Amino acid sequence: MLFQARSIKHCKACGGSVHYQVPADDNRERAVCSDCHAIHYENPLNVVGTVPFWQDQVLLCRRNIEPRRGLWTLPAGFMELGESTAEGALRETVEEAGADVEMGALFTLLNVVRVGQVHLFYLARLRSTEFAPGPETIEAQLFTEAQIPWEEIAFKTTRETLLRYFEDRRSGRFGVHTADIA
Amino acid sequence: MLFQARSIKHCKACGGSVHYQVPADDNRERAVCSDCHAIHYENPLNVVGTVPFWQDQVLLCRRNIEPRRGLWTLPAGFMELGESTAEGALRETVEEAGADVEMGALFTLLNVVRVGQVHLFYLARLRSTEFAPGPETIEAQLFTEAQIPWEEIAFKTTRETLLRYFEDRRSGRFGVHTADIA
Repeated sequence: MLFQARSIKHCKACGGSVHYQVPADDNRERAVCSDCHAIHYENPLNVVGTVPFWQDQVLLCRRNIEPRRGLWTLPAGFMELGESTAEGALRETVEEAGADVEMGALFTLLNVVRVGQVHLFYLARLRSTEFAPGPETIEAQLFTEAQIPWEEIAFKTTRETLLRYFEDRRSGRFGVHTADIA
Repeated sequence: MLFQARSIKHCKACGGSVHYQVPADDNRERAVCSDCHAIHYENPLNVVGTVPFWQDQVLLCRRNIEPRRGLWTLPAGFMELGESTAEGALRETVEEAGADVEMGALFTLLNVVRVGQVHLFYLARLRSTEFAPGPETIEAQLFTEAQIPWEEIAFKTTRETLLRYFEDRRSGRFGVHTADIA
């Protein structure tokens, strides 16, 4: 799914038709209402999640929703208004895996420019190995590095974050990793 | 400015009136079109910028626009579709300060939940001390730590980032800092 630039047809304030033009004091096209002249902006979205770990294992969730239904992912979802990046990451971990975690440091910041998203993953120490997956998850399961189903990982940002996690775990030193994902 | 939850009155797809309700398979209120039933989401925005440095000095811009016109800030602005966080930070540095920088590492990630924003600042080494401020900037000027006009800094995230920068500079080791800004 490419990001939907120029996706606005009507004004969210008055319902009038919009046209795309470069407003005064701006340098790119925006949706401008032909009736009330309100300007509407389209911007990237944040996806926030965690790397829930227990000893030498990481928790993955098998997706029960499209896209990539049936494939494995780290718990993550769109950041909402009224929460911080870490709070959103924790919320998604509870919603998707029903996992009890202690939130740790920011671990990866991954730009996915093609879809207009920034993915942010936090380290999260599991307090228990009892999980209660929500409706978006078929099952939640712990994997050692050798057990990770690399061919059935849902997203490139999940894959990149898992690779970095096991790399840092071997070195004994966890950093903050940034990358652009094609 | 608090974030505008429930700010949508009309559907951007068809122009029909929306009402706020919790859609099936969701757990919070969204704007749902009463005519075409499209669901519209409201999410936090990213503000991206740099800490442009030259020897023991940092570049600040005096704002020529509201809010906080006349006060000093690091170059930063809303992230756009089609760019990464670092590309957006570089673009803002060129637009607001006309500065020539070599982009460095992510330096701060600051949540400003009250306004629905995440501010991300990157280290950026100045290649030159010639600046060409754009229309949003009254003047661009280098400051040592002792010269920083702390009482005339535009935003808490600018202040926090500057404090961390000079702290890390003294220690000789630059990390990635995350914080929630009230």
